[in-house]
Amino acid sequence: MVRPLCSAAIRSRTPKDPVRKVVPITDGIVLGGDGFVVFAGPCAVETREQLFASADAVAAAGAGILRGGAYKPRTSHRSFQGLGPEGLSLLSEASARTGLPVVTEVMDPRDVDRVAESSAILQIGSRNMQNFALLREVGRRGLPVLLKRGAAATLDELVAAAGYIQAEGNDRVILCERGIRGFDPTTRYVLDLAAVPVLRERTDLPIIVDPSHGTGRSVLVGPMAKAAAAAGADGLMIEVHANPEQALCDGMQALRPQEFAQLMSELRRLVPLLGRRMLRPQSVSESKHLGTADEFIAP
Amino acid sequence: MVRPLCSAAIRSRTPKDPVRKVVPITDGIVLGGDGFVVFAGPCAVETREQLFASADAVAAAGAGILRGGAYKPRTSHRSFQGLGPEGLSLLSEASARTGLPVVTEVMDPRDVDRVAESSAILQIGSRNMQNFALLREVGRRGLPVLLKRGAAATLDELVAAAGYIQAEGNDRVILCERGIRGFDPTTRYVLDLAAVPVLRERTDLPIIVDPSHGTGRSVLVGPMAKAAAAAGADGLMIEVHANPEQALCDGMQALRPQEFAQLMSELRRLVPLLGRRMLRPQSVSESKHLGTADEFIAP
Amino acid sequence: MVRPLCSAAIRSRTPKDPVRKVVPITDGIVLGGDGFVVFAGPCAVETREQLFASADAVAAAGAGILRGGAYKPRTSHRSFQGLGPEGLSLLSEASARTGLPVVTEVMDPRDVDRVAESSAILQIGSRNMQNFALLREVGRRGLPVLLKRGAAATLDELVAAAGYIQAEGNDRVILCERGIRGFDPTTRYVLDLAAVPVLRERTDLPIIVDPSHGTGRSVLVGPMAKAAAAAGADGLMIEVHANPEQALCDGMQALRPQEFAQLMSELRRLVPLLGRRMLRPQSVSESKHLGTADEFIAP
Amino acid sequence: MVRPLCSAAIRSRTPKDPVRKVVPITDGIVLGGDGFVVFAGPCAVETREQLFASADAVAAAGAGILRGGAYKPRTSHRSFQGLGPEGLSLLSEASARTGLPVVTEVMDPRDVDRVAESSAILQIGSRNMQNFALLREVGRRGLPVLLKRGAAATLDELVAAAGYIQAEGNDRVILCERGIRGFDPTTRYVLDLAAVPVLRERTDLPIIVDPSHGTGRSVLVGPMAKAAAAAGADGLMIEVHANPEQALCDGMQALRPQEFAQLMSELRRLVPLLGRRMLRPQSVSESKHLGTADEFIAP
Repeated sequence: MVRPLCSAAIRSRTPKDPVRKVVPITDGIVLGGDGFVVFAGPCAVETREQLFASADAVAAAGAGILRGGAYKPRTSHRSFQGLGPEGLSLLSEASARTGLPVVTEVMDPRDVDRVAESSAILQIGSRNMQNFALLREVGRRGLPVLLKRGAAATLDELVAAAGYIQAEGNDRVILCERGIRGFDPTTRYVLDLAAVPVLRERTDLPIIVDPSHGTGRSVLVGPMAKAAAAAGADGLMIEVHANPEQALCDGMQALRPQEFAQLMSELRRLVPLLGRRMLRPQSVSESKHLGTADEFIAP
Repeated sequence: MVRPLCSAAIRSRTPKDPVRKVVPITDGIVLGGDGFVVFAGPCAVETREQLFASADAVAAAGAGILRGGAYKPRTSHRSFQGLGPEGLSLLSEASARTGLPVVTEVMDPRDVDRVAESSAILQIGSRNMQNFALLREVGRRGLPVLLKRGAAATLDELVAAAGYIQAEGNDRVILCERGIRGFDPTTRYVLDLAAVPVLRERTDLPIIVDPSHGTGRSVLVGPMAKAAAAAGADGLMIEVHANPEQALCDGMQALRPQEFAQLMSELRRLVPLLGRRMLRPQSVSESKHLGTADEFIAP
Repeated sequence: MVRPLCSAAIRSRTPKDPVRKVVPITDGIVLGGDGFVVFAGPCAVETREQLFASADAVAAAGAGILRGGAYKPRTSHRSFQGLGPEGLSLLSEASARTGLPVVTEVMDPRDVDRVAESSAILQIGSRNMQNFALLREVGRRGLPVLLKRGAAATLDELVAAAGYIQAEGNDRVILCERGIRGFDPTTRYVLDLAAVPVLRERTDLPIIVDPSHGTGRSVLVGPMAKAAAAAGADGLMIEVHANPEQALCDGMQALRPQEFAQLMSELRRLVPLLGRRMLRPQSVSESKHLGTADEFIAP
Repeated sequence: MVRPLCSAAIRSRTPKDPVRKVVPITDGIVLGGDGFVVFAGPCAVETREQLFASADAVAAAGAGILRGGAYKPRTSHRSFQGLGPEGLSLLSEASARTGLPVVTEVMDPRDVDRVAESSAILQIGSRNMQNFALLREVGRRGLPVLLKRGAAATLDELVAAAGYIQAEGNDRVILCERGIRGFDPTTRYVLDLAAVPVLRERTDLPIIVDPSHGTGRSVLVGPMAKAAAAAGADGLMIEVHANPEQALCDGMQALRPQEFAQLMSELRRLVPLLGRRMLRPQSVSESKHLGTADEFIAP
């Protein structure tokens, strides 16, 4: 029998897991290491009532960080563009109310200082992953940065984009897989979970996953959130809206509060099995009024 | 403030989980339901020694079904094409030796009867997902069929391809997500795990995931195998080779026996948490010589 | 100023244009060389009247080869599957009537001999590009083969698939670009016209383009047909139906006879400028009844 | 015979070709209408000598607009980032020297005024197609804008991005297809030429094609440039470098001056056949020293 050798070279098979960088945020929240952090909240800040309903719900369910957009990158200029400065004020109020630090997106280098006043983490959206002027500006500002993968970006390009931030002296970068463009209209994007172990090989930065944008449909968020945790993610970003049918943006992918609470309950059983512990702010864990603090391992 | 409504219509949010079809294979192995079945073995049958080394290892580690290719669909006609009938005989021997039922690929409608003699499940590879003559022929034969998604197939097309088999009166079809074409050369394919919950909505057929082909690199197989389980898969298909550097086909993505045993150990802790139990043949579970049977819940 | 060198290596810049293989079909029709051949006809053979209407129209307008499917690869088993042997008979009649040789698809290795009786060229559809049993069978049969690129196939994989046919001793293979899967629902596929010059570098086989499947919409067929010619294609494959609204298959992408005649008229001005001449069968060119023979340069 | 109707609805088949908007630039150059304009020059401005060599060559060969990057969006922060303001000065000199208006990229909303001083057209690169702060700023500035399609953008998203510019009162937007992400490493991107006729249906804006970025290899530029013209493009954007092996950026895709001259010569025969005339600045056409002005139809 002729036995031609397989043409594919056998590359190194030893998984390289460098010492992970930990990115401390505030009040006991740390990305990387053995923690697992859930970022949750509405896609966009719409009104005080809407934001507070969502913020209270995600805080009660154990989220570690509150998300919400004040500046929204919308495909059409006719769509709701976010509340801007008014949205930032509401986020500050919601943060004070719940004890959760805030992550919110900045889209314009001229807005970085303003957004930084209301935000513990600056988010760069996927459309701006290679907006190098913006990357440099958030690099200079020094706050932790959440950098979302572009929908057509390779993982090497994502790591290179993070390099623009790091080159300004800011090492606190968190990467986020949020889905890439695919050919099947079934899902909004293709959530590329292999990005998690691949990025662990190529970089020491923490990696979170956004199953809300990555799938575009609320019924898929739970399964993909658990899958992301099992793949080794350091956290999740999940959209929650008290009334998704009325959402001004991306309602189809938002979980209702009770759906989110159910998912958090499942994650609390899954995450320890994966060698991690779920984190939320120390002050929130110690406070009494949420009533569920004892379910959590304080950081 | 102007508040335009989000243009996207809110579709039905209730996850539809139809009564799942169960596909009984043999000897207590059932796909679907609350079982979880690991298909494992070498990419290709190369020699008796190579096959038995892999088969013994996967049986000892708790696999439910032995995989191995006797007819190999290779991009180039100059690559190793499989041992053909000789490979089928070796698979029958390995099945008798280990007690594991066999799944192996059939590529030509004229080979269906021959392959069916050595195989408990007939595999249709991704390149043949829309080889309708072949689909009809395996439909008529009546054995369970493992149907792999084409690398450019939508999930609706996968379900429609299964329809060709079902239309011949054969309802025992198992679907398999094994990666779709993507733009990032980092991985061989993009493993689209959202396929699992989407297919649960659209069909009652069992769904397994192949993280070996789906990633193309052995270090990514473990994280993606666990992610697939967490996403709700009914099983996994994993390539194992005692000596990947010498493999005639796809060595880069094969786990070594000890790597596979480690993954199985992790799955045995993860799978029950997900409400499922790992299955292997009743006769294997009851036999003494493997020494690890008591770790398993007999079906 | 620091002047880092561009990291990308400069590869050989000289276009390699090997001596092109010519694939003679019959009666003066030759693929490759300086000829340009238009394959045209309905997607599927539906009835004698439908086929003859389309065949007469494409012959009158100057097509070189009649296309039409008797065996249709349909996504769903519930869709029209083609007339089978009855369709082959009708194609033979249409060929005798118009003088045009026929190309039609074969999907099952067991049908190769039967299809070969009614066909001057055997077509392998994109879903079967890597159906290796079928490739070998048409290789052995010896007729010219039209091999369509799979929707997720790289160009190297297309060339390797042709290698399966050539390895059986059959060198008369014509490659066909017909669109690859893309993310924009605007078009059915993405017609990858760069395939034409790339394949000219990598193989000496003739290359044609199918703008009908490649775009999926009749209004795009004309512009992309002319673009394919300008990119250096050796021919085109175009769907024509006398009554697209009633077509049993792919009516949206079919040209009406007068639209096809208009396109042919434009191609007759464009093709000579590109150093080629449009070919149709010598007997047709010499016959009187079509009335337009003098517009053509006889081969 | 059962004759199920084709499931696909027949949409309107009449090509909609709205009255095309014409975008006047300067000195007789008009995008849209029956003109055809070639933008050419180096990828990046590197030195005075390098820029002038390229600028002189493209002017002599009949280009209508000089391209060249002073601010370069590079994947890695370690790659050459462009000369910035010094590059803008050199572009102004090259424009005065050759009589060609300049298009150059702006990446930061804070640079718009500065870039506008040296540029007749402001270019938005593909990475910034959805950098909405930048789109609004160039919209307000009022100069013509060349908007390149993002590598993962649908055509509807491209049109919507142009809407951000138009909403600021600036109607002079030129769209540019420059390739989308694909799975085949053969070419840098997949040049989606069907974008040309699709965009003609959906918008009245002029559309040009960049075969240099769209293919990434100089030997493919000529065939795809001619294909783009045949598909109905209003112009081309082509990279030319006197010494591609020494280029600081994208040398693999740059034409040498003599290759560009050869392509222009072929376009001068092809373009009139397509009902268009090649345009260059009136003053250049009237000047004597280039010696080839009489080949051109003055606007």
